[in-house]
Amino acid sequence: MREEPVITRLMTAALERPELLSLAAGFTDNSRLPAAAVERAVAALRASDPGKTYLQYGRNAGDPELRAALAEHLRSFPEETLPGLGPDDMIVTNGSQQLLYMTVQLFCDPGDTVWVQAPSYFVFLELLRGLGVRPVSMPSAPDGAVDTEACRRQLRQWRAAGGAGRPRLAYLMGAFANPSARSLSKEEKAALAEAFRAEAPDLPVVEDMAYRELFFGEPPTVTSMLSMEAWHDHPVLYAGTLTKPFATGLKTGYGLTRSTVWREGLERIKGHQDFGSSQFAQAVLREALRCGDYAHHLREVRPFYAVKAARLEDVLERAGLRAQGWHWESPRGGLLLWLRAPDGLDTSFDGPLWRAAMDESVLYVPGDLCFAEGAPRNFVRLSFGALAAERIEEAARRFLRAAARAAG
Amino acid sequence: MREEPVITRLMTAALERPELLSLAAGFTDNSRLPAAAVERAVAALRASDPGKTYLQYGRNAGDPELRAALAEHLRSFPEETLPGLGPDDMIVTNGSQQLLYMTVQLFCDPGDTVWVQAPSYFVFLELLRGLGVRPVSMPSAPDGAVDTEACRRQLRQWRAAGGAGRPRLAYLMGAFANPSARSLSKEEKAALAEAFRAEAPDLPVVEDMAYRELFFGEPPTVTSMLSMEAWHDHPVLYAGTLTKPFATGLKTGYGLTRSTVWREGLERIKGHQDFGSSQFAQAVLREALRCGDYAHHLREVRPFYAVKAARLEDVLERAGLRAQGWHWESPRGGLLLWLRAPDGLDTSFDGPLWRAAMDESVLYVPGDLCFAEGAPRNFVRLSFGALAAERIEEAARRFLRAAARAAG
Repeated sequence: MREEPVITRLMTAALERPELLSLAAGFTDNSRLPAAAVERAVAALRASDPGKTYLQYGRNAGDPELRAALAEHLRSFPEETLPGLGPDDMIVTNGSQQLLYMTVQLFCDPGDTVWVQAPSYFVFLELLRGLGVRPVSMPSAPDGAVDTEACRRQLRQWRAAGGAGRPRLAYLMGAFANPSARSLSKEEKAALAEAFRAEAPDLPVVEDMAYRELFFGEPPTVTSMLSMEAWHDHPVLYAGTLTKPFATGLKTGYGLTRSTVWREGLERIKGHQDFGSSQFAQAVLREALRCGDYAHHLREVRPFYAVKAARLEDVLERAGLRAQGWHWESPRGGLLLWLRAPDGLDTSFDGPLWRAAMDESVLYVPGDLCFAEGAPRNFVRLSFGALAAERIEEAARRFLRAAARAAG
Repeated sequence: MREEPVITRLMTAALERPELLSLAAGFTDNSRLPAAAVERAVAALRASDPGKTYLQYGRNAGDPELRAALAEHLRSFPEETLPGLGPDDMIVTNGSQQLLYMTVQLFCDPGDTVWVQAPSYFVFLELLRGLGVRPVSMPSAPDGAVDTEACRRQLRQWRAAGGAGRPRLAYLMGAFANPSARSLSKEEKAALAEAFRAEAPDLPVVEDMAYRELFFGEPPTVTSMLSMEAWHDHPVLYAGTLTKPFATGLKTGYGLTRSTVWREGLERIKGHQDFGSSQFAQAVLREALRCGDYAHHLREVRPFYAVKAARLEDVLERAGLRAQGWHWESPRGGLLLWLRAPDGLDTSFDGPLWRAAMDESVLYVPGDLCFAEGAPRNFVRLSFGALAAERIEEAARRFLRAAARAAG
């Protein structure tokens, strides 16, 4: 009895059926992968490290110099003061996925629950189920907004019940969330901080910031919880990745937390799981950060993805999709567009839109996969990450044809 | 309450106290790390893959071309026919450590047991305990030999008891075992195959071959279980690594098995844990295998480690350690020397040898860490992997001084 995760199913489909245009996979655009920067970094490492430590085992918690560079890098964002936090509060992982997995291992046993936004990152929902843990939705709007008042009431109920039924962990996406592309506002986070402090001061909170670097236009003030006074005494983990915005093939994520219990727990699990991520990949990233290639690359890819987002939206707009009852917000960062289909149009694997999309050779992520339970069946996640701009337009036209067929 | 794995404790000590000479850590020799080959591989990838797939996400199970090259590489060893096995029977992991971890996750629940040699790989024993699983010793001699007859009797007893008390998994080291440096003979493996077939045909067996490539002298005929007719219908996993013998910083291991249940189970867990290892590291290794640099590197490092082993032994021999009641077999491969101390000399962290070694600034692995239970306290694991040849001699002299102080 095989239960293949949706992520591998979609990745395999994208890799194996070249005629399919995928608006589903979370891949970035190959044409923009920093081949020259990576080659330069490897040459620079060879020249600057005659002891060749970059090709040897490193530390379980990650390369200390990379962690120092990372802490500095994070502080380069507006309002990210990260008081009291440094390289020793950080752990480097095999992508942020391993960080999330170990966090669930640390706090949850099979049968436990985790509180997630509705919608949330579907790969995380599957990760939970793979560990026998059940995601439950926090009061949220399907556009990604959190109903902080209702959250507070729910936390209060759990406290009144002596903690019975309370989740072991809360998982929030702070910036350009997957799938909604929405960022939590400082006000939402402040209200949540107050609710957690009053009703659940010991409930660990993950803030996933995987997409924060991929903003469009001016650097937005996405202040992480770790930089907010209101969250200072709460167990919060900042989950990040260096490779989503740079080169996914280097697979390097990281976590940052003031909670010693959390960090040491992650280190203990990582010590058993692989006793340290690839030192080579970490050294390449450290060198790219050091010499400026990392920052340069990001300055290049941000407008590039902004243009692709606009091209995708433009085709949908001009075909009059909104007039047919579809709705979406323009993303201000990330790689995703989150569409609400007309009421009654079933976008799931079992519905007419998916069948029509398969016929038109275009892949999307059915929105219902992004909900813990009680999923609405009229949402669609489109990614403008992987496809070249011209192919995005063709994919969008296929999607429009599929939408027309499914509606008719 | 912190329970730091010994591996991270020893690695951190080695990294942080440069005055310590470590005969403990399983590092390879930095001076031989293939910096030129890695740089060449990165340049070749850039030139040959304009689509830059080597910097993008790859597949959950690992790069198909790497797996194909690996299958071919394994067949280059004498008598390794690996009938019926190919790239689709393989999974690539973050070092072989992740493969072992996922295997235990797949087959064991907390409270279960795993059958291990006595001695066994201490990092694996810790991995088990980290997952709440208890290692139990199979009948073995402390030099690494397995008592196949006693194993058969034990398996029969478990079968007679309806399986009560039987481990969920057996873990064997096929080649230059850690710590004994001994390889299982074909006769031992054949006898074990018969015992398992008769008494436990469904009990999964891991054959860890991490050190097989690091042989001294002529290629030995270390036929893996997967190439032996007697094991053909048994669930066996070959656990290997590409990076221990090449560049540990690339952190790439792999598993090979005929068991669909096993492989698919590993893929499912990996899909949740990180959905695929670094494609970049895999591509570098694929290129090094393709262009011959991998094979060339191994031809160079084998005699290099053989010389270091001889230097270490030579110092111990000439100081008359054997006459003082110490015993060891000359290793024929691997990175380790496994010493039996005189009866009554406690080599553990609590004993006089460890204290004396700390005073002399030399690190070793206390042998008792390598046993599941009932550990003899008079064994020592020395590694000649990391230290340069001159420093090995100095470390050996320090060890000799520590041994003299502990005895006196």
